Amino acid sequence: MFNKTPHKGMRDFLPQEVEFRNGLLRKIRSAYSAFGFTEVETPCVEDLSLLLSKQGGDNEKLIYKILKRGEKLASAQGDDLADLGLRYELTLSLARYYANNAGNLPSVVKAMQIGNVFRAERPQKGRFCQFIQCDIDIIGEPTIVAEIELINSTVSALRACGLSDFTIKINDRGILKALCDYCGFEPETHEKVLIALDKMDKIGADGVTAELLQFAPQEKVNKLMTVSQEIAASSQPIALCKKYFGDKVSTLDGLQKIIDITSAVFDITLVRGMNYYTGTIFEVWTAFVPYSLAGGGRYDKLIEKITGIPTCACGFSIGFERISALLYEQSKPEKKPAVAVLIDKKDIDDIATVLQRVKQMHESGSICSIYVKSKNVGYQLQKLALQYTTILEYKNGEYIDITR
Amino acid sequence: MFNKTPHKGMRDFLPQEVEFRNGLLRKIRSAYSAFGFTEVETPCVEDLSLLLSKQGGDNEKLIYKILKRGEKLASAQGDDLADLGLRYELTLSLARYYANNAGNLPSVVKAMQIGNVFRAERPQKGRFCQFIQCDIDIIGEPTIVAEIELINSTVSALRACGLSDFTIKINDRGILKALCDYCGFEPETHEKVLIALDKMDKIGADGVTAELLQFAPQEKVNKLMTVSQEIAASSQPIALCKKYFGDKVSTLDGLQKIIDITSAVFDITLVRGMNYYTGTIFEVWTAFVPYSLAGGGRYDKLIEKITGIPTCACGFSIGFERISALLYEQSKPEKKPAVAVLIDKKDIDDIATVLQRVKQMHESGSICSIYVKSKNVGYQLQKLALQYTTILEYKNGEYIDITR
Repeated sequence: MFNKTPHKGMRDFLPQEVEFRNGLLRKIRSAYSAFGFTEVETPCVEDLSLLLSKQGGDNEKLIYKILKRGEKLASAQGDDLADLGLRYELTLSLARYYANNAGNLPSVVKAMQIGNVFRAERPQKGRFCQFIQCDIDIIGEPTIVAEIELINSTVSALRACGLSDFTIKINDRGILKALCDYCGFEPETHEKVLIALDKMDKIGADGVTAELLQFAPQEKVNKLMTVSQEIAASSQPIALCKKYFGDKVSTLDGLQKIIDITSAVFDITLVRGMNYYTGTIFEVWTAFVPYSLAGGGRYDKLIEKITGIPTCACGFSIGFERISALLYEQSKPEKKPAVAVLIDKKDIDDIATVLQRVKQMHESGSICSIYVKSKNVGYQLQKLALQYTTILEYKNGEYIDITR
Repeated sequence: MFNKTPHKGMRDFLPQEVEFRNGLLRKIRSAYSAFGFTEVETPCVEDLSLLLSKQGGDNEKLIYKILKRGEKLASAQGDDLADLGLRYELTLSLARYYANNAGNLPSVVKAMQIGNVFRAERPQKGRFCQFIQCDIDIIGEPTIVAEIELINSTVSALRACGLSDFTIKINDRGILKALCDYCGFEPETHEKVLIALDKMDKIGADGVTAELLQFAPQEKVNKLMTVSQEIAASSQPIALCKKYFGDKVSTLDGLQKIIDITSAVFDITLVRGMNYYTGTIFEVWTAFVPYSLAGGGRYDKLIEKITGIPTCACGFSIGFERISALLYEQSKPEKKPAVAVLIDKKDIDDIATVLQRVKQMHESGSICSIYVKSKNVGYQLQKLALQYTTILEYKNGEYIDITR
């Protein structure tokens, strides 16, 4: 006997779930396409060296590693047992893809990538070990046109899925760095400072302060909390950033423009986990769930790490499972017109006749399927009624409508 | 620097390829749906114990195994290093799925499953390490209605994709067993006998004879070759099977009926690799390529191995990569109507105006995307023309059509 259930954190999907999910994916694809994004595809499996390139932050700890095979395994030991891994997000793969296919791609690439990613997470509500991400990326566009097109496309995709009540939060890694510098934090502590700051919405100002005090002196912590809270409370936060960090951050005018055009909301405590972001970062939030529905940002250095050629890029990723779960609960299953033809076992010799009829129905665009009568017809009809709108019984060359 | 190319045997797909492949998948989904199949989904990752259950024949040697994680890895050694694997086909997962979800499924399940599978093959033309299979299965239907519906649905899907010139080959594992018995082969040699017989189309009768003689006496080999060639040459092969094995094989009348209705061609040398087949087996062949495009059969014992409950089942799987490669070569890329709006970097301040126009075009159903003029406009226009049918340049509030 084997385990019937999928591996922990992975899922089986029932037909009605697959149909709903496929419907959403169609809507997202269609919305992205309208903005000129074309779909690319990369394998689920990548070299471990790429996945472990210190770009993914803590997510690198969650990589499913694939054991070497054959002779390579026989001579492998310890840390050297695996050579491949399952991708834990799509952006690294896209960077490699761009390096591999640049000659066949336009000068500015607007790519969408929709696929499964894998993380060996401890399963918890809303977190899975295999899940779909829907990414759009613009490679080669240094101006804010990239950010604006990405935000507008994502908003359009979320609206197409039926979501309306959401907020786009925006920040800039340059501002976060300038804030840390301004408050006197050494560069090597910036990451820890930002990890604490990122938790503002979960643990509040007191919690963040306590966490910072564990490794930083009171004076710096107070300065950080004061300045960030002043910016957070301001109705003109970018103007305030300009006052504090204006000479250090060159992107503030652009950021203001993005905010004006997309109605994004500046949030000084927005940090995002990936190491590869270099500028603007953004997330989509709704009041209904305590996590972001989409996230992204500018990563102008990542592709250079693979190609050696400086290449700016910016992306936005929809957490498909999150919006799917949110919308599935509210959805009403639609039953398409579909005909089941029931025949008795003893009439199987007539199947050629029945198939003629079925063929006609297919040609007229109907869903039609043949079922052999089971012993428990009552139960069978009850189950069939879930999928079929019409049930015909074949008897002596006639079709009797026995739909209940 | 990292490796730019995907892992050997895995592939990056360009936008025009993804579009073509997605189009084919839509056609296959739609054809299967018309026959009442509904889509289910299982994870790419399964427990190794399921994957290594001796159901997959030689394919089990090609499993990508996933290293244990955390503490489990620390205490693991040798053969015990991996606990999960990537699925190498979809049927085993479907059997587990059925066991896991039977309560939520109809009494007879008509399931389609479309997804990536993974095999650590040595890459060669037409063989990949990650590839898509499109499966349909009928679980719980013991009569030939299952075989007929599966064959008709697969034929319909292949035709919908644009294939017309193909043959369905059919055989029965029961006949193959009876043939081996009849010629005096011991049960433990049957597998080797059939592996040899399966090569008839590649190495011919002399080659098969030579391979059989390596482990079997001349007399048995001669008998097998004589009987199988007589059956192969007959215009009434099933009648001949009845003469030889009539009392041993109960499914011959049904097989004849399937052949009559689906125009399948009986082939005594059709064997198929998977261990789990128990009855009818079938494949789709075309004259254009030296391998089958689809394959399947009845596997009445597999689900019982997981659930403990006897459950008959039958399936048919389209080798998506093979039909996709075949058809892609013949395809002509369609260019959808799409508009690129080109703006100068100095006009980015006008972007709100341009966005208004883009929005109008989206609302009227057009694809429309904004690009910032690059230094090398000539090259940019050339690349844009590959994707966009109209190129508008924004200048002083006007849109000038600069499509070449």
